[in-house]
Amino acid sequence: MDEFSFINAIKPKAYNQPTLIKGIGDDAAVFRSTSDVVTTVDTFVEDIHFSLETMEPFHIGYRVLAANISDLAAMGAKPAFYLVSMCIPKKWNQEALEGIYQGMNELASMYQMDLIGGDTVSSDRLMISITAMGYVSKERARYRSHARPGDIIFATGTLGDSRAGLEILLHQQKCKDKDYYIKRHRLPQPRAAFALGLREIERVALNDISDGISNEANEIAEASGVELIIIEEKIPVSQTFHQFSEKQQYEWKLSGGEDFELLGTVSKQEWARVQEIAYQENTPIKQIGYVRESDEPRVLIQSQEEVKQLTKSGYTHLK
Amino acid sequence: MDEFSFINAIKPKAYNQPTLIKGIGDDAAVFRSTSDVVTTVDTFVEDIHFSLETMEPFHIGYRVLAANISDLAAMGAKPAFYLVSMCIPKKWNQEALEGIYQGMNELASMYQMDLIGGDTVSSDRLMISITAMGYVSKERARYRSHARPGDIIFATGTLGDSRAGLEILLHQQKCKDKDYYIKRHRLPQPRAAFALGLREIERVALNDISDGISNEANEIAEASGVELIIIEEKIPVSQTFHQFSEKQQYEWKLSGGEDFELLGTVSKQEWARVQEIAYQENTPIKQIGYVRESDEPRVLIQSQEEVKQLTKSGYTHLK
Repeated sequence: MDEFSFINAIKPKAYNQPTLIKGIGDDAAVFRSTSDVVTTVDTFVEDIHFSLETMEPFHIGYRVLAANISDLAAMGAKPAFYLVSMCIPKKWNQEALEGIYQGMNELASMYQMDLIGGDTVSSDRLMISITAMGYVSKERARYRSHARPGDIIFATGTLGDSRAGLEILLHQQKCKDKDYYIKRHRLPQPRAAFALGLREIERVALNDISDGISNEANEIAEASGVELIIIEEKIPVSQTFHQFSEKQQYEWKLSGGEDFELLGTVSKQEWARVQEIAYQENTPIKQIGYVRESDEPRVLIQSQEEVKQLTKSGYTHLK
Repeated sequence: MDEFSFINAIKPKAYNQPTLIKGIGDDAAVFRSTSDVVTTVDTFVEDIHFSLETMEPFHIGYRVLAANISDLAAMGAKPAFYLVSMCIPKKWNQEALEGIYQGMNELASMYQMDLIGGDTVSSDRLMISITAMGYVSKERARYRSHARPGDIIFATGTLGDSRAGLEILLHQQKCKDKDYYIKRHRLPQPRAAFALGLREIERVALNDISDGISNEANEIAEASGVELIIIEEKIPVSQTFHQFSEKQQYEWKLSGGEDFELLGTVSKQEWARVQEIAYQENTPIKQIGYVRESDEPRVLIQSQEEVKQLTKSGYTHLK
């Protein structure tokens, strides 16, 4: 299948976004925005970010777009458009390619996102790069730098599930809720609806949990110049997460990544309203710590025994 | 060099675009547009689109961004932003990576374009994908579908030079103006200034010549539902282009591609003004044919001996 026929095959028959003026079929796409435009790119490479041993083409397409939508959600933006660049091994057949496209399309349809550009080339190894664009109201983009001393820290959903799902797939491990963990790994749900629901809240710091909260919490601390204190036992995990070894639990919930949940901070006054919005959007949410003033931006993790500093990579040491 | 350090290394210290609100450093970038937004993606893979035998890292970076700017120019858009996704072989050193970045930056600086996002991952083979964005005034996007019967067809610059440069590099060929052809291959100049200069002209069809005029002319014919007649001897070529074999000249000027010149059509009434604009922007321009009404969209090529139909791939047959 050559480049042209694949682009034609996946070219949408109709577009959803009312702001789109020109979709696929000219030198470039055109849209007319009245809101601020938010844009991000994510690249997934076979055997680095995913393996065909643990994912089908459908999951791969779904997951790359999920990563992008999660970035948009973390900015408080409504997903609108995406452009796809794919390197496809020659041995791939049309069915596999369509699987990738269907995976992307499944998620795109949920958000009425339009595919507005693409580029497919041959390569030895599968690579998919997506640039996504969304809209956010003026002064409502959610930055990492928006955390303030006194804020509460919250996380959506449960953490470590995607990493657990990968482990189960890699080692054919028998365990409780096996299908649940596998689904969390293959078909993560970005928290776009909840993030959009927050639009009435004036100030929220948000970061999506793509590399684990160790990394994301440190990014918020650095960007905002504050100290984040996370209470270890409050980090939300699934009911059957305790079946894994203590070491696994600890590593996965802090550094597992790719859960595509949201980590955020908001003032105490607004916390009740944030919880209401989460409830309306069917998004589990939990306070996991608080923000403190500090000369040295850093993240501390507090357990029943001790307080340690948590680095970006998840390494802890006594403070 | 890991992903994070490379992104930090190329992160701009200052941004040029006044509409940019947030550059690199959060989950996504944010900009506020009052014009229409034009966006396109181009992907280049080692040993498919370029070879390290004929290009240095600087040229590779330069050329991928040139392809994107050329697409924006073909829409009449002013280049503004770009996001880069790169797969980098582990054996590449920092100097080579910086070469790529410097090549992109050289061209970006010319247009005050800002790098607003990026993603670098390891791979076996070098791959660079760029998504570029630009601005165009309302109702001034230049579509392929804008050709009308009676229009004159024009081309900028000279065609076939990039392909000639590649041939010279591949076969170490001795010839006149060797450096000129090599430069045309490695460091093409997209025609963005000329395309922007056309803003006062109400209707222009434009297509950038990335795959050769055989392909681009057919795209205009199909999108506009018209017949394009191209006069072979009027296709602009460089002064010393005749040193190549007749077969090479014919193939290269029709299907050589990657000259990143513009092919367009405009009404006879506006043609003098288009030539003036081209002169002001130091852009050579030439009429190469005319547009005719037709029940069957197609491209004809007329030589002194005969008239043939020209297909997308450059194949000709008697009409």
